[in-house]
Amino acid sequence: MAENQDRGSTRQLSEKPIVRWAGKDILGIQELSVAEIQFILDTTGSFKEVSTREIKKVPTLRGKTVINLFFEPSTRTKTSFEIAAKRLSADTINISTSSSSVVKGETLIDTAKNLEAMKPDCIVIRHSASGAPHLLARLMDVPVINAGDGAHEHPTQALLDLFTVREKAGRLAGLKVAIVGDILHSRVARSNIHGFTKMGAEVHLAGPPTMKPAAVERLGVHWHTSLAEVIPEADVIMMLRIQLERQEGGFFPTLREYSRLFGLNVDILKPAKPGVLIMHPGPINRGVEISPEVADGPFSVILDQVTNGVAVRMALLYLLVGGEKEADRSSL
Amino acid sequence: MAENQDRGSTRQLSEKPIVRWAGKDILGIQELSVAEIQFILDTTGSFKEVSTREIKKVPTLRGKTVINLFFEPSTRTKTSFEIAAKRLSADTINISTSSSSVVKGETLIDTAKNLEAMKPDCIVIRHSASGAPHLLARLMDVPVINAGDGAHEHPTQALLDLFTVREKAGRLAGLKVAIVGDILHSRVARSNIHGFTKMGAEVHLAGPPTMKPAAVERLGVHWHTSLAEVIPEADVIMMLRIQLERQEGGFFPTLREYSRLFGLNVDILKPAKPGVLIMHPGPINRGVEISPEVADGPFSVILDQVTNGVAVRMALLYLLVGGEKEADRSSL
Amino acid sequence: MAENQDRGSTRQLSEKPIVRWAGKDILGIQELSVAEIQFILDTTGSFKEVSTREIKKVPTLRGKTVINLFFEPSTRTKTSFEIAAKRLSADTINISTSSSSVVKGETLIDTAKNLEAMKPDCIVIRHSASGAPHLLARLMDVPVINAGDGAHEHPTQALLDLFTVREKAGRLAGLKVAIVGDILHSRVARSNIHGFTKMGAEVHLAGPPTMKPAAVERLGVHWHTSLAEVIPEADVIMMLRIQLERQEGGFFPTLREYSRLFGLNVDILKPAKPGVLIMHPGPINRGVEISPEVADGPFSVILDQVTNGVAVRMALLYLLVGGEKEADRSSL
Repeated sequence: MAENQDRGSTRQLSEKPIVRWAGKDILGIQELSVAEIQFILDTTGSFKEVSTREIKKVPTLRGKTVINLFFEPSTRTKTSFEIAAKRLSADTINISTSSSSVVKGETLIDTAKNLEAMKPDCIVIRHSASGAPHLLARLMDVPVINAGDGAHEHPTQALLDLFTVREKAGRLAGLKVAIVGDILHSRVARSNIHGFTKMGAEVHLAGPPTMKPAAVERLGVHWHTSLAEVIPEADVIMMLRIQLERQEGGFFPTLREYSRLFGLNVDILKPAKPGVLIMHPGPINRGVEISPEVADGPFSVILDQVTNGVAVRMALLYLLVGGEKEADRSSL
Repeated sequence: MAENQDRGSTRQLSEKPIVRWAGKDILGIQELSVAEIQFILDTTGSFKEVSTREIKKVPTLRGKTVINLFFEPSTRTKTSFEIAAKRLSADTINISTSSSSVVKGETLIDTAKNLEAMKPDCIVIRHSASGAPHLLARLMDVPVINAGDGAHEHPTQALLDLFTVREKAGRLAGLKVAIVGDILHSRVARSNIHGFTKMGAEVHLAGPPTMKPAAVERLGVHWHTSLAEVIPEADVIMMLRIQLERQEGGFFPTLREYSRLFGLNVDILKPAKPGVLIMHPGPINRGVEISPEVADGPFSVILDQVTNGVAVRMALLYLLVGGEKEADRSSL
Repeated sequence: MAENQDRGSTRQLSEKPIVRWAGKDILGIQELSVAEIQFILDTTGSFKEVSTREIKKVPTLRGKTVINLFFEPSTRTKTSFEIAAKRLSADTINISTSSSSVVKGETLIDTAKNLEAMKPDCIVIRHSASGAPHLLARLMDVPVINAGDGAHEHPTQALLDLFTVREKAGRLAGLKVAIVGDILHSRVARSNIHGFTKMGAEVHLAGPPTMKPAAVERLGVHWHTSLAEVIPEADVIMMLRIQLERQEGGFFPTLREYSRLFGLNVDILKPAKPGVLIMHPGPINRGVEISPEVADGPFSVILDQVTNGVAVRMALLYLLVGGEKEADRSSL
């Protein structure tokens, strides 16, 4: 197992274990096997190349319809999915809460069933309620991709994070990954805890005690109450966005105080390893959880994450809608 | 005439009377002839098949531009038109009130004339004012499709309803069609009264007296004050969405009272014919005008209506934008 | 130079001076040379023809992605850019403030850098802050087109105005162009002052003294305090939209008063030249700055402006994204 997990992205395609993609949906990292994650990351590599071409488009999903059903505002995730679908030649339909008949009181299930009746090939959903995508996936034949559900999971974010680390560090297994900030409310943290742990990395969490999930150690991770404590050993430092409205909720006293204790800056980063990777799912609060010098600095891979987000979403749309269902799984 | 109206959808295409499509716009069912309606329904059959293909796309409207100009919020109708246009390979432009320069006080006519100057090939308009699409159609050379104007007409809804009934029942003429609820404020009811009556069906309306249009019997329909009264004879029962805000307007005392008198449920449906078709234009208020057991039950064709909505809109876009203008009309 | 400026649009393509398009961005008319403006106008001519075809589409930008990033509401400009991009076969992504993560407090630069990381080929930006497009253009490798920045510039509007005048009048140099209304707050005025002046036209401004920019004469234009004064000599009369909210700002007493002094109507137009061109960037306030008889009258080219807007934006997208970078500049 460790051998499989430890492969760099430079290995030959022919050497990789091939899986037949069997899943209908992408709902969370928790539901994915190590082999499935590896297969997604390998597939992502092929699609990343497309966006570097002069003509950034392949005909893979021509005549397919992808619906982006977003019940929460979003720029980067929605745009990333839309660009991914279009680069595969799919038609895209964007539906946002404000313009939706949800204002008329229709239930989520009825909205989804109605969209399904128009014969789309994939529904990408973001919803503030944890489990909303799972509910839809159970009730519908069409593939569903979770683009973020409440504080539960954000699997495509974790997959792009895993891809970015594997691309930069050459491996995932054995790495020490620090995730810092509001762990309690973060679907990004939750998905990445599952993802990095599954792939053999060691996950270290740091944040204020008010933002520590109950019994988080049961997930096989380590808890730290100070940012400084996780810096020296970390191969990866992933900063989480602090939701400014949490201050009113009493989760931390002031932004200045939060920033002093859990903000990443050049000073606190001094004992870090030479090749440490600085990550952030965005949008960043400059000067709060991360200083501009670090966000724009040499160790930051924040914009690589964004670039890889398009590639990982192309790979997922391809796997769920376009094929590989017939591939050989015997070598697994 | 009765012979023509009584054809089932299984007849050979070659046996059908062919019309040369002459109309520029689709503004209402009231303006359409029986032959035109039949021609649209027959054309819809061909396009329904496209959405069942692996590659759900035909090049018919490549290089054409369809503008969806929506002054009222809508998910299903706007999405249905957008998917229809894209499956014909047209380019689509969505304009909604909120993002439109209508906020700057421009008149409807100026908005439309400006859009026309960008050389689109069709404008689909939904507006809260009855007659708005007719005004535009008079002033513009570009084809206009009414996607709902005030309480006046919603012709594409009626066409998809007619298509669904003809598909399921094999015919339209001679059927007894019950339309139940807020007839007074419903453009869906108005278009369907015209449509089913023209096609030789017998239309029965039921609803609270406050929701009865004045002199509705002049349209050749029958009025009933009780839902139970129309159930036993009906081949089709079409429930209308109750607008919750009508309660404040004093049109009915409470939702519970409305539901008790005019809500469709398993009990009241007991004396219905074996093959009765239950329809609803959506979005449904579960437990108000229709119970979940009936909406999701074996007689419901609600989701078939949605599927057929895409097909009928493809047919209309094809007829208005793409062609058939040269077809032979001599056999009529 | 005067000879070059004086060319009509009917000249043979082979006779035109060819420039190799070197600019990365279109930020303002102020930054463009006379040769560059001419080259854009000439290129626009070729693209105008595309929108008259049965199939209004060319494959020029297939596989390219154009992002419309609009921080201010807009129908016509956004739609014009979207149609232009689609007629060149580009994929388009629309991002408007309301649906954007700007609500989460992300900086403009971070929003743009993130979008750039998704590898688009052009970003079209409208922003209420003057200079916002210039900031992005400096920081990004991707071409940026200014679709309006504060009260600063609206270069694509000026280019379509120049094209329209050249098309109708056969030339630009030597013409007398009157721009009337709220010069102080108008990016359209500012861009057109630069554009017409550069191309050898004589620019006359008229408006209330409260709407006169300080030291505007330094731009080489003439200031008039009365509309009547500029009518008899003008070859072109360009009316500006009055922002109704300026009244509250005290810039004019009442709309009626404004209209009486600076509104264009049939009466005041009597001493105008026979072939005078009436222009307006839209949306028009009927009966305020322009009477319906004049807006819809024989001298109005307002809808031609809109049609030409699509063509000029096709030309710009083509020049910045698609090519001509290798063309011969030696003949300049």
